[in-house]
Amino acid sequence: MARTREFNEDQALHQAMLLFWKKGYEATSIPDLLQVMGISRSSLYDTFSDKQTLYIAALEHYKKVSFNRQVILERASSVRTGIQQFFEQHITSAYDTSLPGGCFVTNAATTLESRDEKINELIKTSFLNLEQAFCELLEKGRQSGELDKTTDVKAWSYLLLNLHQSINIMAKADQDQQRAKEMISFVIAGI
Amino acid sequence: MARTREFNEDQALHQAMLLFWKKGYEATSIPDLLQVMGISRSSLYDTFSDKQTLYIAALEHYKKVSFNRQVILERASSVRTGIQQFFEQHITSAYDTSLPGGCFVTNAATTLESRDEKINELIKTSFLNLEQAFCELLEKGRQSGELDKTTDVKAWSYLLLNLHQSINIMAKADQDQQRAKEMISFVIAGI
Repeated sequence: MARTREFNEDQALHQAMLLFWKKGYEATSIPDLLQVMGISRSSLYDTFSDKQTLYIAALEHYKKVSFNRQVILERASSVRTGIQQFFEQHITSAYDTSLPGGCFVTNAATTLESRDEKINELIKTSFLNLEQAFCELLEKGRQSGELDKTTDVKAWSYLLLNLHQSINIMAKADQDQQRAKEMISFVIAGI
Repeated sequence: MARTREFNEDQALHQAMLLFWKKGYEATSIPDLLQVMGISRSSLYDTFSDKQTLYIAALEHYKKVSFNRQVILERASSVRTGIQQFFEQHITSAYDTSLPGGCFVTNAATTLESRDEKINELIKTSFLNLEQAFCELLEKGRQSGELDKTTDVKAWSYLLLNLHQSINIMAKADQDQQRAKEMISFVIAGI
């Protein structure tokens, strides 16, 4: 029989995710977490062991609940349309002021002071997966003849991954998402 | 006569900068600051008013003491060489593990929870200045004939500014600066 908890673990984790996303790992204190999660200190430690384990669970929860944009790339029938649609979603979400701001994983990469191996691996894997998704779509386009046979698929994938990160940063500094959209069209025209 | 202080303001500010750079604004506490700055609480408040004012002073100090890479762009005799050299310096510094990691201004943009107007302005101006420097160099190249007359100078400047940000993020997730260097060569070849 599953152990009964006095709180909804998923809801509590969701609140923890929002707080970590907003404040970053270092600036989020245990009392802050207890407050937003609405649980007792002993419940937190019983369920999530410690702050770092909770943070990793929050990152994993984020990847689960956030709209999985990579599906757009996987299901795209054309390279250019797929990349365009992927970035449209990404830009809209990065500039959405009702969300904590930017991608939680990108923020995690920047705000992390301690180079914890487990968290680092989670971030690296997340970046690698996205690069891989770009790579597969571009390769499909190269095979189908949509792209030139000489297209440097690896170079373009890494560049697109970089733009995915930079849009998160730019969204924090200015509110002009039009320029980000124009940049993506400009880049796609060059592939 | 200048007011005599019992501490070296520049040295104290430098230490504050390193700590803010490493930990971000929110996670840096006043006791942490007092410790690295080696000054008393009253000295801190007398000289820097409050944490936010100190943070702004630290950002300005950073811009002053960090090697001014924009000079490379301003003095470049060729667009491609200028951009290449600028990014070589930037990548070396972003991947330098002896520094807190990444650009302090990019980190500031990401880690900032409160959207303070003054700090926002400082970050925006810093981004704008760099974009402007790219723009001027590209325009010079367009005028001199190094670049094609149809080169979209504005689009390229914004793209290069984005890559400046993304390299900071990527440097935190992987240790392979070679890929960043290859990306820049790839992009320059397309201008």
